[in-house]
Amino acid sequence: MPPSALPGFRDFYPAECAERSHIFQAWREVALRFAFTEYDGPPLESLDLYTKKSGDEIVGQLYAFEDKGGRHVALRPEMTPTLARMVAARANALRKPVRWFSIPQLFRYERQQRGRLREHFQLNLDILGEAGVTADAELLAAALGMMSELGLTKDDVRARVSDRRLLNGLLVLAGVSSDQLPLVYGVVDKLEREPRPVLEEKLAKAGCSDLVVARIFEVLKFTDLDMLRSEFHGVAALRDDFSRLASYFEMLDALGVRDWVVFDLSIVRGLAYYTGIVFELFDARGEFRAIAGGGRYDNLIAQLGGGDIPALGFGMGDVVLGELLRTRKLMPRQADALDYWVAGAEGASDTIVMRVATALRRRKLRVEYPLREQKLSKQIKTAATAGAAKVLIIHDDRTATIRRLADGHEESVGLADLLDGAGDGARDPWVSANAP
Amino acid sequence: MPPSALPGFRDFYPAECAERSHIFQAWREVALRFAFTEYDGPPLESLDLYTKKSGDEIVGQLYAFEDKGGRHVALRPEMTPTLARMVAARANALRKPVRWFSIPQLFRYERQQRGRLREHFQLNLDILGEAGVTADAELLAAALGMMSELGLTKDDVRARVSDRRLLNGLLVLAGVSSDQLPLVYGVVDKLEREPRPVLEEKLAKAGCSDLVVARIFEVLKFTDLDMLRSEFHGVAALRDDFSRLASYFEMLDALGVRDWVVFDLSIVRGLAYYTGIVFELFDARGEFRAIAGGGRYDNLIAQLGGGDIPALGFGMGDVVLGELLRTRKLMPRQADALDYWVAGAEGASDTIVMRVATALRRRKLRVEYPLREQKLSKQIKTAATAGAAKVLIIHDDRTATIRRLADGHEESVGLADLLDGAGDGARDPWVSANAP
Repeated sequence: MPPSALPGFRDFYPAECAERSHIFQAWREVALRFAFTEYDGPPLESLDLYTKKSGDEIVGQLYAFEDKGGRHVALRPEMTPTLARMVAARANALRKPVRWFSIPQLFRYERQQRGRLREHFQLNLDILGEAGVTADAELLAAALGMMSELGLTKDDVRARVSDRRLLNGLLVLAGVSSDQLPLVYGVVDKLEREPRPVLEEKLAKAGCSDLVVARIFEVLKFTDLDMLRSEFHGVAALRDDFSRLASYFEMLDALGVRDWVVFDLSIVRGLAYYTGIVFELFDARGEFRAIAGGGRYDNLIAQLGGGDIPALGFGMGDVVLGELLRTRKLMPRQADALDYWVAGAEGASDTIVMRVATALRRRKLRVEYPLREQKLSKQIKTAATAGAAKVLIIHDDRTATIRRLADGHEESVGLADLLDGAGDGARDPWVSANAP
Repeated sequence: MPPSALPGFRDFYPAECAERSHIFQAWREVALRFAFTEYDGPPLESLDLYTKKSGDEIVGQLYAFEDKGGRHVALRPEMTPTLARMVAARANALRKPVRWFSIPQLFRYERQQRGRLREHFQLNLDILGEAGVTADAELLAAALGMMSELGLTKDDVRARVSDRRLLNGLLVLAGVSSDQLPLVYGVVDKLEREPRPVLEEKLAKAGCSDLVVARIFEVLKFTDLDMLRSEFHGVAALRDDFSRLASYFEMLDALGVRDWVVFDLSIVRGLAYYTGIVFELFDARGEFRAIAGGGRYDNLIAQLGGGDIPALGFGMGDVVLGELLRTRKLMPRQADALDYWVAGAEGASDTIVMRVATALRRRKLRVEYPLREQKLSKQIKTAATAGAAKVLIIHDDRTATIRRLADGHEESVGLADLLDGAGDGARDPWVSANAP
């Protein structure tokens, strides 16, 4: 027996590949509709591209090695460093804002992760060079547009939104000191996953007084932006943050996605990374991990050596999304079915079958025919297995029967116009017969 | 400055990515039309998957390393071992013939190759489980169908075809002994690239007498299959080979590609690999390296541990093909242009611009709008830079002007039907106005 795929790596057989294509196509189609253009970088990059952002600890989670030229290299674990590198190299030539997307395969090696995937595909969609809140709204609308495109509704998916600047202001107001902030963010991030006493203890250890701890939890219980805003109405330091968020929600309304979005201060995301509005997409029933996450990261591109440029973006992986679509029965069963199976009846020559198949393929139809002599009954069975919509049964050089496999309906046809015609698009009956 | 991509690796900026997509789309579209379905495997595989086929020498050409679990792994240098592995794992469950394609990125590390690419994308299209010559014809027709789809004609591209079995028979007949055959194949392979005296000397060194050498060159000068066949008419050992090739060319005629194909015994390809009909695609002017190559490799899948199954396939890379398409001006200039740029005139609110953009995007149109306030004249300039077909200038919540950028033609429109309508496909004027 040949070896199997490496642990954590997937083989994509036709069924799985069709599901993957279905997701990629929705991502691509909506990204283009939102005026994003596709880019890609190499799956192998210099290791320092990642250590520069995340420190040397990241190496333990990477497929990192020394190549034959003595270079320290790694399979890409994320796309943003490549994006920063590419934008920096052509910073002056690119029209701003840069609106780019990519669908890279990403790789992580962690020893402990038995049974977990070590690769996945992740849509990355980013806007670089625009600091205003309109860009934030546009970004989330694009992410939610992809959900719609895949057949998901606001009853299936929720976007939870927060703003790091507002949370920061609220925590400072509650009495958290700036050196306590990172630890407090960590606690906020775990609000849904750990019991309150555990979190309170962590906060106490960080030096937060009982009063400060109580204030933190009081602030975090708000799920309505307007109520939070009236509560802190008089605080000048928060005025800009509230007004920015209010615009944001108005714009989400204009972009037709307000109904999908809830305000949730507990959405923190990458601690050292995001600087403004952040969001995560979840399935509404809470059965899966996050579908997507992103937000504004105005300092990161500069940190990566990519120049001082405001930026925002999100990542959406293929794994959780695929699980959700399968659970909701939104994954198409057979993407690549055939339009015609061309079958030769007794007396039909090999070459007439091939000529007919060629004429149909020139009309952009998907066509298979048997590569060896077979009885007609066997051919028709194979056609059904192959997922053909119709069998075209060739009797001789001039006549044939079209059998629709769904209901067995048959129709006699002549072959002259098919073999002679140039296939002039929609007016060609051979094509329009296959129109949806 | 951030580091650049590793030597031999490409960054795909939007322009290059659009070219890549153009090629991938043609490959995919024609493969599906020919009833092939897509699969994929991991870019990282066990090293022994490659050493098993090619011996330990191959390691010197690979990105090979030890992962953190002590596994010897390599970035895939070719797809066939993965294909064999995947087919073997489900040998009984798969409908035969297996008709699969994939577009993997492949990796080779050779120290000497300064300035040469170390990665490329390669279409792999294979038929497994069919020994008959019809499959060989179908395979070449698919490869040439891709050339047509990309706008290339038989004046741009030639397929050169040989049959390893016929060549073998002819060489044995010329007096080449079986232990001399591999070296003689090597000489045949170099027929076009090295001067005849050099090749004659190589043959002499291998122990071929002057008479045998003369006979070899006599056979190789035939470029017409029919003439070669009459020359060796009486030789029983060659009868099957000639008759198979004759059927092959008849079938290529029925499949509409006979005109692209020339008979050329000097096409040998991978020495220890191919067992039957082999082919290469070249540009007709001979300016580039081969565009594609493939053929029948009936023993390889078994060698790779994939079971005793006849097989044939070809590989077509993105690099040479891309060069040819650019040279012939067949590469589209801007693939992802916009249908509409939505511009707000003075007095139009932000949200009306967003609502209109959303309504157009729901009609599957590609739409951008400015993410910050800009003068109308600036917006129209940006729209042109962005490759928009039309600018929709919003005056207020109800009225707008459509300006076609190609000729400046303007038309006044109301927005009510756009904002209210559901976008019912082809009958929607907002969509049909953009039909090709």
